[in-house]
Amino acid sequence: MTDARPAAPACDDVTGTCCTPLTSGALGGEEAVRLARLLKALADPTRLRLVSLIAAQENREACVCDLTEPVGLGQPTVSHHLKILVDAGILHREKRGVWAYFSLVPGALEQIGSVFSG
Amino acid sequence: MTDARPAAPACDDVTGTCCTPLTSGALGGEEAVRLARLLKALADPTRLRLVSLIAAQENREACVCDLTEPVGLGQPTVSHHLKILVDAGILHREKRGVWAYFSLVPGALEQIGSVFSG
Repeated sequence: MTDARPAAPACDDVTGTCCTPLTSGALGGEEAVRLARLLKALADPTRLRLVSLIAAQENREACVCDLTEPVGLGQPTVSHHLKILVDAGILHREKRGVWAYFSLVPGALEQIGSVFSG
Repeated sequence: MTDARPAAPACDDVTGTCCTPLTSGALGGEEAVRLARLLKALADPTRLRLVSLIAAQENREACVCDLTEPVGLGQPTVSHHLKILVDAGILHREKRGVWAYFSLVPGALEQIGSVFSG
């Protein structure tokens, strides 16, 4: 049985060109912990909708004020979900004036995709 | 703001040719719930390792007896994690003799990949 993946590239951060496809060999312990953390941040219907709503904006960014009505939740709840996505490295947060604007971190979603599509 | 995805194909089950890429438009409520459930089943380091270990087998299937040692956990715990993956439609379970054998449901991981890579 193959229980190691000798040629697996390092998965340094969420924007890297990692990770090794899940089906290409046994996943190491550290890589599994990192990927599980990323998936956990996304494994919530509201957070998935927030990511897709931000991606659907013309300029691919949104402030909390754009997001509360489509998901039908109050601003504190939406901000809480956005923070989890920022902490996971999936969203980027930029304060401009009174509002914070959220955009997708380039490559973050594609990285998850490559793990499952390989 | 675009808050609907008119041409989104239905996501009937885990083995279907769905789902719509997350970045192609605002995700509907039901599709978000279904995708979140699938990601939650995978959002655990042990379960990710089990999936990769099964994929790494020569014949792409494994029994619990093959999996306990590599993940360093007892049979009841491994069986519990495998059941979650079977219930989510990610693994297929087949009883043969005294052992149950687990294999990847064709297309299940690729479907998740397509959501993030689109």
